[in-house]
Amino acid sequence: MNKIEHIGIAVKSFETSIPLFEALLNTPCYKTEEVESEGVKTAFFQNGPNKIELLEATNPDSPIAKFLEKKGEGIHHIAFDVTDIVAEIARLKAEGFTVLNETPKKGADNKLVAFLHPKGTNGVLVELTQEV
Amino acid sequence: MNKIEHIGIAVKSFETSIPLFEALLNTPCYKTEEVESEGVKTAFFQNGPNKIELLEATNPDSPIAKFLEKKGEGIHHIAFDVTDIVAEIARLKAEGFTVLNETPKKGADNKLVAFLHPKGTNGVLVELTQEV
Repeated sequence: MNKIEHIGIAVKSFETSIPLFEALLNTPCYKTEEVESEGVKTAFFQNGPNKIELLEATNPDSPIAKFLEKKGEGIHHIAFDVTDIVAEIARLKAEGFTVLNETPKKGADNKLVAFLHPKGTNGVLVELTQEV
Repeated sequence: MNKIEHIGIAVKSFETSIPLFEALLNTPCYKTEEVESEGVKTAFFQNGPNKIELLEATNPDSPIAKFLEKKGEGIHHIAFDVTDIVAEIARLKAEGFTVLNETPKKGADNKLVAFLHPKGTNGVLVELTQEV
């Protein structure tokens, strides 16, 4: 766990939220990217060593569409940068955490990612990310 | 907005959550601190340039008690490190954000802090923090 890589925030519409976060963070959105397998579009903002990632659903079955329906807009997950995601998955499993992706999968922003089940982390959806 | 200073996570009990986050983050809790005016106890973990702050309510009227009642355990707020909190408050007000503390107040961890209303930030409770 080297640092917070990014915070993921679920939003209804990039059209209003990208300008809003550009104003909030005082920096332009530097990239948008679709992750088709997850049914999401992502928009990234650099904030020093960290990033903010906005998430917009691309279809009604997207996990983000379900999150918005249930909880509304807001913070969706916290992603930590790790050096060796396979070793970190093994360490966290040994500590008793439930890893949702035993084999890391390809995420946005050229990363290998794995998620922990929020029931084991006080309701916090935790993502592990390793630069490919 | 220099970086994410910390992520605040509302939990029911430090007794179970401090060991849990020590295992998750693979680092010991380095400080606990009570902020009486807010009705909270805080517990801090370093994560590279960032921190994780656990929040436990000390009385039933605490904003954290109300958050737990309404939403359950989970991510409560995101705090950004700023160099000049007074200038940043002025900038954000000019951008149309609602600043809840026009005059910064004393927060945990030797910081001056101010919050933005989450209705203006897609449901995200944003804290500005400046090292005293």
